Amino acid sequence: MTHDNAPANPRFDSAVRDSFARQGLMTLFGAMLAEVSPGRVVIEVPFADRLSQQQGLFHGAVVGAIGDSASGYASLTLMPPQSEVVSVEYKINFLRPAAGDLLRAVGEVVRAGRSVTVARTEVLCRDGQALRPCATLLATMMRVEPGQR
Amino acid sequence: MTHDNAPANPRFDSAVRDSFARQGLMTLFGAMLAEVSPGRVVIEVPFADRLSQQQGLFHGAVVGAIGDSASGYASLTLMPPQSEVVSVEYKINFLRPAAGDLLRAVGEVVRAGRSVTVARTEVLCRDGQALRPCATLLATMMRVEPGQR
Amino acid sequence: MTHDNAPANPRFDSAVRDSFARQGLMTLFGAMLAEVSPGRVVIEVPFADRLSQQQGLFHGAVVGAIGDSASGYASLTLMPPQSEVVSVEYKINFLRPAAGDLLRAVGEVVRAGRSVTVARTEVLCRDGQALRPCATLLATMMRVEPGQR
Amino acid sequence: MTHDNAPANPRFDSAVRDSFARQGLMTLFGAMLAEVSPGRVVIEVPFADRLSQQQGLFHGAVVGAIGDSASGYASLTLMPPQSEVVSVEYKINFLRPAAGDLLRAVGEVVRAGRSVTVARTEVLCRDGQALRPCATLLATMMRVEPGQR
Repeated sequence: MTHDNAPANPRFDSAVRDSFARQGLMTLFGAMLAEVSPGRVVIEVPFADRLSQQQGLFHGAVVGAIGDSASGYASLTLMPPQSEVVSVEYKINFLRPAAGDLLRAVGEVVRAGRSVTVARTEVLCRDGQALRPCATLLATMMRVEPGQR
Repeated sequence: MTHDNAPANPRFDSAVRDSFARQGLMTLFGAMLAEVSPGRVVIEVPFADRLSQQQGLFHGAVVGAIGDSASGYASLTLMPPQSEVVSVEYKINFLRPAAGDLLRAVGEVVRAGRSVTVARTEVLCRDGQALRPCATLLATMMRVEPGQR
Repeated sequence: MTHDNAPANPRFDSAVRDSFARQGLMTLFGAMLAEVSPGRVVIEVPFADRLSQQQGLFHGAVVGAIGDSASGYASLTLMPPQSEVVSVEYKINFLRPAAGDLLRAVGEVVRAGRSVTVARTEVLCRDGQALRPCATLLATMMRVEPGQR
Repeated sequence: MTHDNAPANPRFDSAVRDSFARQGLMTLFGAMLAEVSPGRVVIEVPFADRLSQQQGLFHGAVVGAIGDSASGYASLTLMPPQSEVVSVEYKINFLRPAAGDLLRAVGEVVRAGRSVTVARTEVLCRDGQALRPCATLLATMMRVEPGQR
């Protein structure tokens, strides 16, 4: 499912890290980039009370947010320099309650096109030793050239 | 699109407000319940820097979060007393950059079933006088009885 | 939800009808274009045994097919001359069993962009006098210029 | 991604084949069950002119139909005897034009719940020697007990 082409942007790593650092919300969530590879990005978030839903688990919005971001940044790694990535849409299925101390979103490119990229993210939840899938997300991303938007 | 049946729970309003108040994340977002009617819930969030993405607009995760919540709580208004609502899945299309000072998510039930409810949320962004659609979300919600989960 | 701009293609009607007529599958389904307006297309299919699923109702694939087509052609009505329309993705919720003698898919543009258009289709099923929603579909369509693909 | 539990229905194979055989539309499409395993079903369709869209390729509706069916029947293999499976919703991304002589839909269960099952289908298109992904589908399926619907 990962993309085997060489990335079109030799500086894909800093492209992702710079964009990520500018997102106020990722800071608010305490989210971290755990991996940035061609066609693949991993984001992690440790649990905190402020990220909870009504039962004290990770809120679905946090699951959706890092799922969407992991798909978006995985897509960005394969785009030409100066590109920005915009989420056209995504769909997420929640598989289990997100109970645990850490969320991990593993985003991978399914198909990289000239302007549209399809990506998938598996979101896992770590509860002690166990790491279980808690959501799967399928997204459509679009490349935007600087100044185009 | 709204549901014309009488709500099965005469205290639907407090069912929604109590659950909403227990969500740490909604507090973190500064989100407010602007309307709770049978089959319809409106959630609003004023802009704040901590809710931004890399260009200083509302982060898509905030758009998704209140869209999901508005669909979920709209569904809950039509469920029997003691029910809890769980998001099975949702899909969101982003229509415009969410630039503005206020986000408003209008969630409405499309079809209420015994266990599964389909709901839709339109998310609008207010920029000065203009109120423009910035996302549309289609969700599947499930009723969970207390202690069932 | 309909689009109030003048269509960019004065011959939008024949653009849709010509493309529709070339689809072998629409003929196989006995599908007909019941309306072609700017930003809105209606497709109808009378029931036939060959269109059934295992319980003798309309197969979900027929519901999905005309839902997707109605969204696609609604999008095409607002595109410049010579455009072709391609489905990037769609999501469909089935609301009720499609029991009846006629399916009607009403596709409308939600947001028409330069290259990407978001459209929605409500699929209704007529059973005697009653006309009931049986599915709702949310789609992303892309404009393709001739020879581009 | 496949399910490692023993199937709850020892006759899962005939449950799938009997239901499949009753679908008028699968016959119309010339679709065949190429594999029925616990948590996994493969459906194939050879190309025919009547299955085409306006450019002579496989129509997206055929891709969607066998994708939905493969997810539904993969889910059914893990359900108790006498269950029926109903599609709650699915989302499909089209990855490439479906040009070729054979479509193959590989459906697998992602998460089997008591009433709701999440499944994924990869649809591949064979063109001479090459077998390429042309769509990916993510679906929510529901178990219905006999007489319940």
